[in-house]
Amino acid sequence: MDVYISGVGMTKFGRSKDSLEKMMAEAASAALKQAQLERVDAIYMGVMNVEEFVGDSNFATLLADTLGLTGVPSTRVETASSTGAGAFEAAFYAVASGHMKHVLALAGEKMTHLPTAKTTRILSEVIDRSERRYGATMPALAAMIAQKYAREFNLSSLKLEDILAQVAIKNHSNGSFNPYAQFRKIITREDYLKSQMVSFPLRLYDCAPITDGAAAIILTSEPTPIKASGIGHATDTAAVRHRASFTSFNSTKEAAQKAYAMAQLNPCDVQFAEVHDAFTLFEIIGTEDLGFFSPGEGWKALEEGITHLRGRLPINPSGGLKARGHPVGASGLAQLVEIVYQLREEAGKERQLERTEIGLAQSIGGLGNNNLVTILERSDRKRIVKQGWSPDYHPEIKVLKKTDHPSPPEGTGILETFTTLYATPEGFLSPLTIGFVKTDTGEMVMACNPDYRSPKELKMGKKVYLRTREGLYVFEKFTLWDRLKHRLKKQPKNN
Amino acid sequence: MDVYISGVGMTKFGRSKDSLEKMMAEAASAALKQAQLERVDAIYMGVMNVEEFVGDSNFATLLADTLGLTGVPSTRVETASSTGAGAFEAAFYAVASGHMKHVLALAGEKMTHLPTAKTTRILSEVIDRSERRYGATMPALAAMIAQKYAREFNLSSLKLEDILAQVAIKNHSNGSFNPYAQFRKIITREDYLKSQMVSFPLRLYDCAPITDGAAAIILTSEPTPIKASGIGHATDTAAVRHRASFTSFNSTKEAAQKAYAMAQLNPCDVQFAEVHDAFTLFEIIGTEDLGFFSPGEGWKALEEGITHLRGRLPINPSGGLKARGHPVGASGLAQLVEIVYQLREEAGKERQLERTEIGLAQSIGGLGNNNLVTILERSDRKRIVKQGWSPDYHPEIKVLKKTDHPSPPEGTGILETFTTLYATPEGFLSPLTIGFVKTDTGEMVMACNPDYRSPKELKMGKKVYLRTREGLYVFEKFTLWDRLKHRLKKQPKNN
Repeated sequence: MDVYISGVGMTKFGRSKDSLEKMMAEAASAALKQAQLERVDAIYMGVMNVEEFVGDSNFATLLADTLGLTGVPSTRVETASSTGAGAFEAAFYAVASGHMKHVLALAGEKMTHLPTAKTTRILSEVIDRSERRYGATMPALAAMIAQKYAREFNLSSLKLEDILAQVAIKNHSNGSFNPYAQFRKIITREDYLKSQMVSFPLRLYDCAPITDGAAAIILTSEPTPIKASGIGHATDTAAVRHRASFTSFNSTKEAAQKAYAMAQLNPCDVQFAEVHDAFTLFEIIGTEDLGFFSPGEGWKALEEGITHLRGRLPINPSGGLKARGHPVGASGLAQLVEIVYQLREEAGKERQLERTEIGLAQSIGGLGNNNLVTILERSDRKRIVKQGWSPDYHPEIKVLKKTDHPSPPEGTGILETFTTLYATPEGFLSPLTIGFVKTDTGEMVMACNPDYRSPKELKMGKKVYLRTREGLYVFEKFTLWDRLKHRLKKQPKNN
Repeated sequence: MDVYISGVGMTKFGRSKDSLEKMMAEAASAALKQAQLERVDAIYMGVMNVEEFVGDSNFATLLADTLGLTGVPSTRVETASSTGAGAFEAAFYAVASGHMKHVLALAGEKMTHLPTAKTTRILSEVIDRSERRYGATMPALAAMIAQKYAREFNLSSLKLEDILAQVAIKNHSNGSFNPYAQFRKIITREDYLKSQMVSFPLRLYDCAPITDGAAAIILTSEPTPIKASGIGHATDTAAVRHRASFTSFNSTKEAAQKAYAMAQLNPCDVQFAEVHDAFTLFEIIGTEDLGFFSPGEGWKALEEGITHLRGRLPINPSGGLKARGHPVGASGLAQLVEIVYQLREEAGKERQLERTEIGLAQSIGGLGNNNLVTILERSDRKRIVKQGWSPDYHPEIKVLKKTDHPSPPEGTGILETFTTLYATPEGFLSPLTIGFVKTDTGEMVMACNPDYRSPKELKMGKKVYLRTREGLYVFEKFTLWDRLKHRLKKQPKNN
């Protein structure tokens, strides 16, 4: 059964004094009003970690009751930071099954009331346990991906910085036109360069902010002007080090492939997209993974203005997670609300794109391991359903073969990528240098380095010495002098 | 599209040394093997509170990866203590939509590794915030419901005790035949009476235990011998005091109505059921809410042996939550695994019922406010699809009208029900007496009583004096002497 959208709503994103359920009720009420409904057949509501952010459990029930929809089936859905898209997907299948006519997809998160270190710790719980033990945070892992991307595609540090700044500047500019956005002021290159380093090379302006907010969409089997035509979902390894590539996400590619197949569309048919820019570089990688641009060339499209608001393929007209804000559970659904506004030509004079018919949203869960791609289109679009059609999109899915031999306790390896993290989670001293090291036995391990405090002292692709200390890998530059120095320093302590 | 079951699996329930993901992988592997599948189109996995029990987020991803199903879409579903049934429901709609062929529903929880007071606190987070503030736990609310049930249906304390003991004895007896059950020993009336009081009148043997475990089911659109023919889901008010009745659950009734309608069955067609006996009395209330017996008469069916393993309508042949154990997220799915075993005649000589064709599972989320009812049947059952059919089941859904006038800070009211809680959550002294009081203005409020330590001093239906202290209602017996005594005690402190 085909699935349509009859109503959308969202709160202004930012710091809110309202409770999470109140914000979610505000978004839901707006969507219900637009759909001219008083009741729905079911609610699928997404919150990522209401247990720790708010201290509540059984939130799906509280929500139904708060909405005045006591009795209505209510299910909580969670896929880490893509939760909002996950709630939409669950609602989509409920309507598509033919068992339900009107379903409310609802998503939100309340985060700003906690200290940043605690929020950072809670957000870090989406990271693989073994990598989290090193103090790895989401910005730290994203920073290592950014470093690796620059190395893989031969971008100098300055060039990388320039590209990241351009993403931030574009999205803040778009966000300045969005009344729902957390940040509505444009930023300059100077602002970007002045912003504090969170995890080298990522600055504060490379990271989506901590935000409160909620979004809602009503899905229905009754035809409306907006149709949900494609949806795809895929996971990837929990640990980043278990991936064959650090510079693209298999989960985006596989999710996109499914969404394109369901919608019978190709990447070139997409006219604009909301791409999960939790970190600036993720927008670039996203546009490559979605098949819009070749690997390593997404930044060129940005430089050429293609992805700008008035470009050929606007990316994040809403301002993205970067400027609209990122209440983790809500973002995936807020992206879809923006697509509906654009398709309906309700985005407001400054932000409204020229008439579009097809929009796509890509949402990332965790560090790129629970991603969804959703395609919405105008129902009045001329489309020909083709039998036996398959998309003209064949992404390369590289998978690392799992080996059983345990990593050695000591030895040498190559420093694949690293970061120096300044905003550490609860319980870790700042700054903290961590990296991925490929051992001589071919294993990829995470390792920390308590000695090097400036990222400039380290280089990717160089040999490092690796040993274990308290169950963690530690890496050091592999020079005779360093090794000697280390031995000399260590010996007295051991006596 | 019709939905069938091609594989089931579960771990032995109890205290486990395995990690949650390992237990869930064990259950999933068994189900996949039975279904002769290596891969599925999606995973819907239920855990109630992995964030606080285990300290992880993004668990759906970890699970897919642990199962060797990296890449497969994986979504976490949560509906409090009915989470396992919620995961099955989400998987059901995914298959019913026609977009997916084979879907894994998976559920689990790991609880035994934490101190009991912490587990009690985490479990209490499913309770409405305003009621939780009084220290109300799940057993405390269930105890108040038991007291109210006895009063409403004119059962003496001794009679109530006798009924509750019978449920516990029956379910432990059934569990003794179940190799997956946490408790496999029968208990006697003496054992029951000797067991410690958790929240008057509920003893330890009235409460489902703290358990580790996991269960898995493969749903498919390809016909198999077992069909999922009906599913219903409904919520109720977050706060217990906002309900018109304390002795039945609207959410069960509404969920049952939907499930019967979808399956085109009546309560009298059901041949056996798994009923959510998190507390002994909930089994009795469940059999009434499901339309098997009239309100207030479920216990008679138990006394007459109707619900015994060899009775006309066996309830909880598995041993129920009481004896099989209650890993909160897993129980709803484990109930369905038992129904599959029974329908397939694979339950083992001692536990196997005579050939049955239709089984039902009822799962309670929170304190009866997020419930699901699922009906499975043998595909070879003779059935006639009737046009315009509706079930012969018209439960009474009583709803309290919401009033806007705030409850008075002080006054008199009637003590509707109460309990003395001995196993208090973290941060509350034991024993703790709490109750529901209907104020003279017609509001129902929760109130505590720091003075009365023995439940025998209090009586339901009696007038009490109500006042507020530190934002909480406190109730006292309404006698002149008590009031005078209180005034005399208070005055010096205020000066």
